[in-house]
Amino acid sequence: MKGIRRLAHHLDISIGTVSRALNGRPDVNEETRKRVLQAAEDFGYVPNQSGRSLRQGTTNIIGFMIQTGSEITGQGDTFFMSVFDGVQVVFARHKLDLVALLCSSEEDPGDYLRRVVARGFADGLILSATQRHDPRIEFLAERNIPFVTLGRSLTDAGQPWLDLDFEGMAQASIDRLVARGHRRIAITRPHDDVNLGYVFVDRCREALAAHGLTLEDDLIFRSTPNEAGGYQIGRDLLALDDRPTAILLINETIAVGFYQALSEAGIRPGRDIAVIGRYSPHAHFLSPPLTCFRLSLRDLGIALAETLLSSMPAFRHHYPHATANQLWPMELVEGESDAFQIHQS
Amino acid sequence: MKGIRRLAHHLDISIGTVSRALNGRPDVNEETRKRVLQAAEDFGYVPNQSGRSLRQGTTNIIGFMIQTGSEITGQGDTFFMSVFDGVQVVFARHKLDLVALLCSSEEDPGDYLRRVVARGFADGLILSATQRHDPRIEFLAERNIPFVTLGRSLTDAGQPWLDLDFEGMAQASIDRLVARGHRRIAITRPHDDVNLGYVFVDRCREALAAHGLTLEDDLIFRSTPNEAGGYQIGRDLLALDDRPTAILLINETIAVGFYQALSEAGIRPGRDIAVIGRYSPHAHFLSPPLTCFRLSLRDLGIALAETLLSSMPAFRHHYPHATANQLWPMELVEGESDAFQIHQS
Repeated sequence: MKGIRRLAHHLDISIGTVSRALNGRPDVNEETRKRVLQAAEDFGYVPNQSGRSLRQGTTNIIGFMIQTGSEITGQGDTFFMSVFDGVQVVFARHKLDLVALLCSSEEDPGDYLRRVVARGFADGLILSATQRHDPRIEFLAERNIPFVTLGRSLTDAGQPWLDLDFEGMAQASIDRLVARGHRRIAITRPHDDVNLGYVFVDRCREALAAHGLTLEDDLIFRSTPNEAGGYQIGRDLLALDDRPTAILLINETIAVGFYQALSEAGIRPGRDIAVIGRYSPHAHFLSPPLTCFRLSLRDLGIALAETLLSSMPAFRHHYPHATANQLWPMELVEGESDAFQIHQS
Repeated sequence: MKGIRRLAHHLDISIGTVSRALNGRPDVNEETRKRVLQAAEDFGYVPNQSGRSLRQGTTNIIGFMIQTGSEITGQGDTFFMSVFDGVQVVFARHKLDLVALLCSSEEDPGDYLRRVVARGFADGLILSATQRHDPRIEFLAERNIPFVTLGRSLTDAGQPWLDLDFEGMAQASIDRLVARGHRRIAITRPHDDVNLGYVFVDRCREALAAHGLTLEDDLIFRSTPNEAGGYQIGRDLLALDDRPTAILLINETIAVGFYQALSEAGIRPGRDIAVIGRYSPHAHFLSPPLTCFRLSLRDLGIALAETLLSSMPAFRHHYPHATANQLWPMELVEGESDAFQIHQS
């Protein structure tokens, strides 16, 4: 055991707290900070050299790691390009360049990130697709490399993060559907261990429980984030003996395929089943219009960039008010896909 | 004047030929090669150091430069992500990583590229959005940095390139529309100086001339590559006193907005006007289905990567048969949008 992990073990506090204390973050109490700094001195802890060079900002490049591959970006991207646009607005102020680090879905993201860091060409990093347990977070924190995550994780090194408010989406959707009489409500989750899936399922379960309802296991559909995944969910749902009367789609890329599967069976959203999803540029092709949650991706990019820079010594003074941890709200756009109501007998 | 440009001037041959000769490419005759090598020795020419380090492949990163910005990728990307997918298939064989170099449309691409090269973090580069005159090409060639362009340019340094066969698309479309009786045929071109616009307009003009027809200036519509651009073209077309009976859309991102503008005026593609465009994942939402030209973006990515590697000393032996210059064919997918015919009286 070495570095920041050893300090945390010795002090019996979390790696996140140690990291926050070492980075002079305000959300650590004074006594803890003193203990950490004393222990760091006792142990002769110095930040890893590659981290140090990264922190000094010698390359003026910031890397944004995203997952690619035919299952993920095979039909294009309607999320990250707009986020990049916002990030670049901020970086342009500081002559920083953004590069997209494209990690193929066939490769382990941890291995990929180790190569990126070994090559030392970025001053800081933005990670996306945070997993339930994400070794990338500890890896970067131990090296004192500035980074921000788009998404939370159970692995918490005290790094700044932004995340879409999936809890808010889950709560508002379940409340809305229950108010319209639905009792058998299905939800979807991603095929992999991305953290947002857990957050979403947990909050849906809690929201249903508050109404005295249970989230049944056979009403949780897993799929890849693409049209084919949505189509498969539609087929699987239609094959159930006791079909749910409503469904909540977590991913913006699956609505099109889901509609298609329903359409082939003569089932119409809004008339025969209630559907709530997420906005994408495809959404306005759907008939009937999808009731969906929307956010400004460009503004999210701006906030991500400012949060990252607020954690980097060279730029911190420009962003004294950046929020280190932030749930990004999504706004409900009323469509017609959830007009279907259940009338209690 | 210095470097490769000086050699070319002295020998009174093109920079491209000098570059090909210095790189030992087979398409230079023996006598020319000897003259170039002799002159290089006389002038004490050595490849630029940053180029040399790039050629030696010390970073194992290949950069793919694309344009971003709200006008270009504001509604997402349905082109490059799939091309990246193909590129990564090839790079994975050699443990090379692909990074996307995101050049904001608000920045000069030449300035951006100079920074990228100064930072020296890529072994080779893929350039897209080649302009009619593109200083990036000479810049990289002079530094002997391995690169391939997706797109041609009047600036030719003898670098390998792949380009979509816009001439083939123009020729086939014009012939098809003329055979269906159309005489007033409109076309679109990009808003900027990207080379493909010139290639496309020129071939349309020639193909029309072969049928005794003229491409009229007021039937050439310029637009940004997005839905709003397509919508504006639709509005402008409808405002003409003498409306064309057919239109050829060069860009895959404009069809949706174009259909929208027509729909608002009660004009239906295939019934009231003939429309031919390019395939995108959006195309299958359009009603009636768009007659369009399609290509495998993933295969294009594979070819781009193999072409680049075939020009890099460390990888050349893996790709002895890669084609340095290639027009990539597009396949016509029959829809209903061009069913409208003009019956000669």
